[in-house]
Amino acid sequence: MYKTQLSAKVITLYPELFPGPLSASVTGRALENKLWSLETIDLKKYGRGRHKKVDDKPISGGPGMILMPDVLDEAVLKANSLISGKNKLIVCMSPKGIPLSQNLVKNMLQYNEIIIVCGRFEGIDQRVIDKHKMKEVSIGDFILTGGELGAMVLLDTIVRLLPGTLGNAESIISESFTDDLLEAPQFTKPIDWNGMKVPEILRTGDHQRILEWKNTTAEQITKKNRPDLFIKYVEKNKKKIKRK
Amino acid sequence: MYKTQLSAKVITLYPELFPGPLSASVTGRALENKLWSLETIDLKKYGRGRHKKVDDKPISGGPGMILMPDVLDEAVLKANSLISGKNKLIVCMSPKGIPLSQNLVKNMLQYNEIIIVCGRFEGIDQRVIDKHKMKEVSIGDFILTGGELGAMVLLDTIVRLLPGTLGNAESIISESFTDDLLEAPQFTKPIDWNGMKVPEILRTGDHQRILEWKNTTAEQITKKNRPDLFIKYVEKNKKKIKRK
Repeated sequence: MYKTQLSAKVITLYPELFPGPLSASVTGRALENKLWSLETIDLKKYGRGRHKKVDDKPISGGPGMILMPDVLDEAVLKANSLISGKNKLIVCMSPKGIPLSQNLVKNMLQYNEIIIVCGRFEGIDQRVIDKHKMKEVSIGDFILTGGELGAMVLLDTIVRLLPGTLGNAESIISESFTDDLLEAPQFTKPIDWNGMKVPEILRTGDHQRILEWKNTTAEQITKKNRPDLFIKYVEKNKKKIKRK
Repeated sequence: MYKTQLSAKVITLYPELFPGPLSASVTGRALENKLWSLETIDLKKYGRGRHKKVDDKPISGGPGMILMPDVLDEAVLKANSLISGKNKLIVCMSPKGIPLSQNLVKNMLQYNEIIIVCGRFEGIDQRVIDKHKMKEVSIGDFILTGGELGAMVLLDTIVRLLPGTLGNAESIISESFTDDLLEAPQFTKPIDWNGMKVPEILRTGDHQRILEWKNTTAEQITKKNRPDLFIKYVEKNKKKIKRK
């Protein structure tokens, strides 16, 4: 058996949402099998006064409310008290963070303990981010109502890669984003589905030609859906050719 | 009162995960207030044989399992039967899709009905994607165990923008990603927090200087965390200057 490889503490105003989607499928099984652990810290508990106030207006004016530094600080100290702290990472889900990528996920695998802060409202007081040297991470260029879904996405991507999480049914080998190309279309039975046929070349068993087809198709899809990735791919291949 | 503006149908092997995180906070209130509706279609029900098999091996060989076209097709037909179909969008969460962005979210607001297919395993048979002209959407360059979290992220970003969803407590005005710059740091009370002070300029009440500070700081953060966005921003500003 594998031992617990990741201890996750999530600081949130909505602790009841966890583990939520992470309780299903492979991440859920890994949680049951104690490959990782998950504990929430209820930010509301650290609120001020009778109404457990956690936010206040931005100093500089403008709309929205900001999570107060001392409230979040206490929650972080609580999270810190629950871990050894020997090999920890503290992440803050934020639209102004560095983008989550598969490389960043792999990089995070080096940590045994992760604290994730879920932002809400207009943002978090920057001083508490600085004090705890939080790594600000964004899951994309879109706006969510809070950091909880981001935290779940982050945990899903990490836990998936923990040794022992993926069984035989799932595969980790031919992953997207490892070679800067999107994946080629996939097909399964039946060969002829209401007149829509699987491309003939894929049925030849000729591995070299299948690989070529997959690569060409992957290039086309990448060029169409992700011109940004395609440029990187072309640049990289130019360098490879030069090296030869 | 606002009427239901979005009818969402989610096709998934894990219907029990919904609404899950979407039941909290503003998206949950909007669901209660019937600004949007959510129904799941259990893909497993359309599986084949006694074991309700939904997947099979890829025709071209290789690892993993592929969602069978006829199984998913039946689930899509079921979803179609639950909506008017007058103004619908059908999305498939997939790492090879076009990237979710705030612009794409805004674009999706034109649809009253959305069907979201959550992929699992190695992928979905391409023919069913083609048959139903599904829009393949990716939430980022990382690999999730399934499309469910992606579907939740997509719904969260859309529902947030439905008129009536955001109350006074939340704001939609100063959003990230609308001007190609990340947001500047935010601060709230206390002004002096254990010796860490809010930048003096933000306390002057001088709106012009505050705006300049925010812009300069936003430029610095964007340059550091998102060189890709920063290049776009610089290019855009060059054009603006030329036009003057």
